[in-house]
Amino acid sequence: MDEVPGSVGTSASFSLRLGQTMFASASLLFMSLGVEFYSYTAFCYLVTIMGLVIPWSFTLALVDGYSVLVKCPIRQPGILLIIVVGDWVLSTLTLAAACSTASVVNLLLNSHGSICPPKFCNRYQISAVMAFLSWFLSFASSLFNLWLLPSL
Amino acid sequence: MDEVPGSVGTSASFSLRLGQTMFASASLLFMSLGVEFYSYTAFCYLVTIMGLVIPWSFTLALVDGYSVLVKCPIRQPGILLIIVVGDWVLSTLTLAAACSTASVVNLLLNSHGSICPPKFCNRYQISAVMAFLSWFLSFASSLFNLWLLPSL
Repeated sequence: MDEVPGSVGTSASFSLRLGQTMFASASLLFMSLGVEFYSYTAFCYLVTIMGLVIPWSFTLALVDGYSVLVKCPIRQPGILLIIVVGDWVLSTLTLAAACSTASVVNLLLNSHGSICPPKFCNRYQISAVMAFLSWFLSFASSLFNLWLLPSL
Repeated sequence: MDEVPGSVGTSASFSLRLGQTMFASASLLFMSLGVEFYSYTAFCYLVTIMGLVIPWSFTLALVDGYSVLVKCPIRQPGILLIIVVGDWVLSTLTLAAACSTASVVNLLLNSHGSICPPKFCNRYQISAVMAFLSWFLSFASSLFNLWLLPSL
């Protein structure tokens, strides 16, 4: 069976997972360090989703690292299906959270009056960008794994 | 070759496409009938995306209806791939637009002061719900077609 680069148990997948964890953590930190995020539903939602993405990606990064070290990738269709479905669900939720955050930040920036202090708004923007990057990597992971699935 | 229900050229797919067109048109109408939607980036984005989804879904509904009538479904892998990729891209964009609209409406409703007259806000909410329904049907279509793709 040919190896799909980026599927579970390869070093490319390990890098993707590490990137997801890093960007999701950065997004969470930039959002949580601002003190006003409880006032907006979209920001609370982003924090919740990032709290789900970080352990998921980190666990899979550990699995990938272990697979690369022992040179024995996971090839059980059941486990792979769970990973693919989990990736799809989480990447959809991440996209939703990133879009909500971006649109709320945009609205806060454009509204007249000083709703949003510039210091906080910049943080919110960086947080939204990090969430988009995390979504992109998560989407790539799930595509690669989905590609591998029919060949098992 | 076994028939996948919901893939291109079946009556289930025809219903899915009709539903997408209907919900996307409803979302567009509810948004455009409010007079203030130009002020918000998220609402303009929703209108743009719905303007893309409606012709796409309507064209594919026509193709499906024709295929059902002449009992000759499309089975060229190239065409199917274009349909799958187009569906994925449009469903991702629809999800992004629906989430942005929903979060902006939520922010407008919760902010103190009378930013949003109740009459308009209800319309915006209905528009967001319609966009979510359209996304759900579009996602279902693309999953069914993706399922068919490896068997060709």
